[in-house]
Amino acid sequence: MIRARLDVSYEGTEFSGWARQPGRRTVQGVLEDALATVLRIPAVALTVAGRTDAGVHASGQVAHADVPRLPDRRRLAGLLPADVRVRDVRAAPAGFDARFSATRRRYEYRIVDDPASADPLRRRFVLAWPRPLDATAMADAATALVGLHDFAAFCRRREGATTVRALERLDVARDAGGELVCTVVADAFCHSMVRSLVGALLAVGEGRREPAWPAALLAREERASDVSVAPPHGLTLVEVGYPPDDELAARAETTRARRTLP
Amino acid sequence: MIRARLDVSYEGTEFSGWARQPGRRTVQGVLEDALATVLRIPAVALTVAGRTDAGVHASGQVAHADVPRLPDRRRLAGLLPADVRVRDVRAAPAGFDARFSATRRRYEYRIVDDPASADPLRRRFVLAWPRPLDATAMADAATALVGLHDFAAFCRRREGATTVRALERLDVARDAGGELVCTVVADAFCHSMVRSLVGALLAVGEGRREPAWPAALLAREERASDVSVAPPHGLTLVEVGYPPDDELAARAETTRARRTLP
Repeated sequence: MIRARLDVSYEGTEFSGWARQPGRRTVQGVLEDALATVLRIPAVALTVAGRTDAGVHASGQVAHADVPRLPDRRRLAGLLPADVRVRDVRAAPAGFDARFSATRRRYEYRIVDDPASADPLRRRFVLAWPRPLDATAMADAATALVGLHDFAAFCRRREGATTVRALERLDVARDAGGELVCTVVADAFCHSMVRSLVGALLAVGEGRREPAWPAALLAREERASDVSVAPPHGLTLVEVGYPPDDELAARAETTRARRTLP
Repeated sequence: MIRARLDVSYEGTEFSGWARQPGRRTVQGVLEDALATVLRIPAVALTVAGRTDAGVHASGQVAHADVPRLPDRRRLAGLLPADVRVRDVRAAPAGFDARFSATRRRYEYRIVDDPASADPLRRRFVLAWPRPLDATAMADAATALVGLHDFAAFCRRREGATTVRALERLDVARDAGGELVCTVVADAFCHSMVRSLVGALLAVGEGRREPAWPAALLAREERASDVSVAPPHGLTLVEVGYPPDDELAARAETTRARRTLP
């Protein structure tokens, strides 16, 4: 068996998220089935860097699978539906684990706050917010969240899993077309964390909350019910970062241990 | 009454084209109904620069309507579905006719010829072609079509209407991402002309026809049944050009006369 690294893109609109679920159309399910067909084996099990929710898109997702040989990328393309693509397949370096070797995940959340000028060609990828947002206040609030913190207020806590994350970057800026782009980079994210961070920033952008409010939530020890989770379709996983090849195995060990701390 | 100029964008996927048809969801129908509601009048009649077919998109469509006052763009946005936007509304200059004053229409047709690397986030706007295309051969064939010609071979002829058009630009180039972009500019287009031109170029790109073949078709006096019409979803109307304000009325007169020559 060899370990294959797959670089994957998908439009999340018509998927019930990444993770395979019985009776649901999921990215993992569609990909695993296509891989098994191309490789002529009964089943393939994928491990992914970012388990995206229903409706979330990915342009730079990474997964791995242990397979008897590398699948042909064009045959795979012939089998896959048009809303998911395997952009690259290659033999993974020794010690590579798509999930546990990753050192950073980068997401982008896009918002247009003038519905009259929302681009209809981008409506599946950009949240249309009905009122103007104060991008400067949002950027100030975002800066105060950067760093190593317990993000419990922004996480759905799971038994035995830490909610401490290193938020490397969180910024809000308007692009040339007037869209608000929220860029979020961390070593990892707990469930619905990116969309909760964006939800908190939206409350600031609207003036319902002060710019200091999101950072103040870091003192809480559990999910803050007053933080709303922003809709999924504005969110795209754009990049997963890995360390140099000779550090992959050590990184995977460290992450596995840390994620399961009591 | 004043004449309003509307700059419009839409994703064509879920529309049965621009032109209003009973029982069908069309861009014209949706827009006229929303305008009538905002203006509180029984009906509004739009005249458009490019009557796009079902499935064709527009980022730079232009239309006009004679209305008692200018509609509020934000109220209009609140009524319109997310796949059509009125980007701008203003009083049209004297003599302006969205259809007959226009001097040029620019369309883009996008093709990806490596389905394995087709971007799933762009699948509604880019034709995925299953085999590699020779962009140089297509560009050569395109160049030979530029000029004032009778495009009858590429048109569905209508009684009494000329099929002579000034094709100002037709070129094929790969963009940075490897997509083939076919840019087409003419004073006007007859029905399905852009998609027929692209269909002919695709035959050249695949090597089924010589680069000289599309230009040779200009000698024909009726629709060439061996030219296939490329699918609509790769096509976007990106721009409509008008002359300076003091030439609008004269231009409209000239065009009206020319289009109805026997």
